[in-house]
Amino acid sequence: MVGPNVGQQRSPESRLQDLSIQLPAAPTPFGSYVEAVQTGNLLFLSGMLPVVDHKPAYIGKLGKELDTKAGQGAARITALGAIAAARDYLGTIDRIKRVVRQSVFMVTTEDFGDHPQVADGASDLFRDVFGAENMAVRLVIGAASLPLGVPIELEVIFELNE
Amino acid sequence: MVGPNVGQQRSPESRLQDLSIQLPAAPTPFGSYVEAVQTGNLLFLSGMLPVVDHKPAYIGKLGKELDTKAGQGAARITALGAIAAARDYLGTIDRIKRVVRQSVFMVTTEDFGDHPQVADGASDLFRDVFGAENMAVRLVIGAASLPLGVPIELEVIFELNE
Amino acid sequence: MVGPNVGQQRSPESRLQDLSIQLPAAPTPFGSYVEAVQTGNLLFLSGMLPVVDHKPAYIGKLGKELDTKAGQGAARITALGAIAAARDYLGTIDRIKRVVRQSVFMVTTEDFGDHPQVADGASDLFRDVFGAENMAVRLVIGAASLPLGVPIELEVIFELNE
Repeated sequence: MVGPNVGQQRSPESRLQDLSIQLPAAPTPFGSYVEAVQTGNLLFLSGMLPVVDHKPAYIGKLGKELDTKAGQGAARITALGAIAAARDYLGTIDRIKRVVRQSVFMVTTEDFGDHPQVADGASDLFRDVFGAENMAVRLVIGAASLPLGVPIELEVIFELNE
Repeated sequence: MVGPNVGQQRSPESRLQDLSIQLPAAPTPFGSYVEAVQTGNLLFLSGMLPVVDHKPAYIGKLGKELDTKAGQGAARITALGAIAAARDYLGTIDRIKRVVRQSVFMVTTEDFGDHPQVADGASDLFRDVFGAENMAVRLVIGAASLPLGVPIELEVIFELNE
Repeated sequence: MVGPNVGQQRSPESRLQDLSIQLPAAPTPFGSYVEAVQTGNLLFLSGMLPVVDHKPAYIGKLGKELDTKAGQGAARITALGAIAAARDYLGTIDRIKRVVRQSVFMVTTEDFGDHPQVADGASDLFRDVFGAENMAVRLVIGAASLPLGVPIELEVIFELNE
């Protein structure tokens, strides 16, 4: 379908509105660190956990207490947290050019096989907000454990506009 | 032995030829991400898996189904994949100045002790192609699981020539 | 207490002296890699292990052979190693503006819950040496195994002064 926005790129804040996404409150640290550090035009974030109000929204292992769909939900929360952390630091996510890299660490049973599908819970959100023409690279790694007993931790590096 | 190339540095593409290395086809994504993103003069890659034609070339755990030598072979394939991904993105790997960082994630039994030797399967290849004067830093981490059941995943950041 | 240094920022080397910290010898590689690579004004380090004289100072799993306090001690050694590696590369750590990112990989039992406290063993040292106004972002990840059987590996990226 050819709509009114063909040929022009919507800004990330506009896309959030288009998608009716309300960002959660920005995450806060669990120790001696901060949530975001800018160096040059790169913005590094702390590992994002699926927490709401500083408490875990998902606990357990993928393939045991949590299925693939729950994992995708948890991954999506970490990505929303990343966007919230970036907005908190930058004032607006329109200063973001793209996600450079995302690393999705996940706790799974030995025979779990849906790592990529779970990670897409975060990656699809980034694609929708920052554009399919700006997709990031990705690492997907099975962790033995994660802080607070959560199933997912997300690393993100953003590139900012000059 | 003093040969004709003393004092001049061979380019990465020339070294590949010297070593009679044929790169595999560049890897393709398993989800909503891309294989390479450049920001400034850094080139970030997605996690490289030991896959051939989008299918795992090695499955299993180091110390159980796979020994150290098999692990080195798997690590070498991930490094070849990284070079292929970079060439696919850049056109030529002669634009690469060096590997900045490599992270080797590997699935092992609890008592496996040859992590560094396995990782050298990738690091030795990078040394041979980009030069011993340009060696990278390295992380080596035991993962609980990896996508597709493979034993190795490789993170790479390249620095490009200006 | 208002002392003579209020209002001026102490340099990292001065703070090391204030804290009576003697850095250990810089770490040396276990394979085909180097301990530090600078690109632009970023300094990437290899994964720092809790080793003294190239031998593990701590062996085992957090929650089993090692408790939280031992984990903090191991984490602190990795952070001292990172500062030693940076000084070895740069000549002086006064060239360091800040830690950009620290990633603490740790081997724990399934029910271990003190990941953030253990990681603070490294983060608190960085805060004390580089200043509370310069805290870094942080990833904390449970690994299935680490080289040499150690419980902690630390990733660090420093930002250097122009």
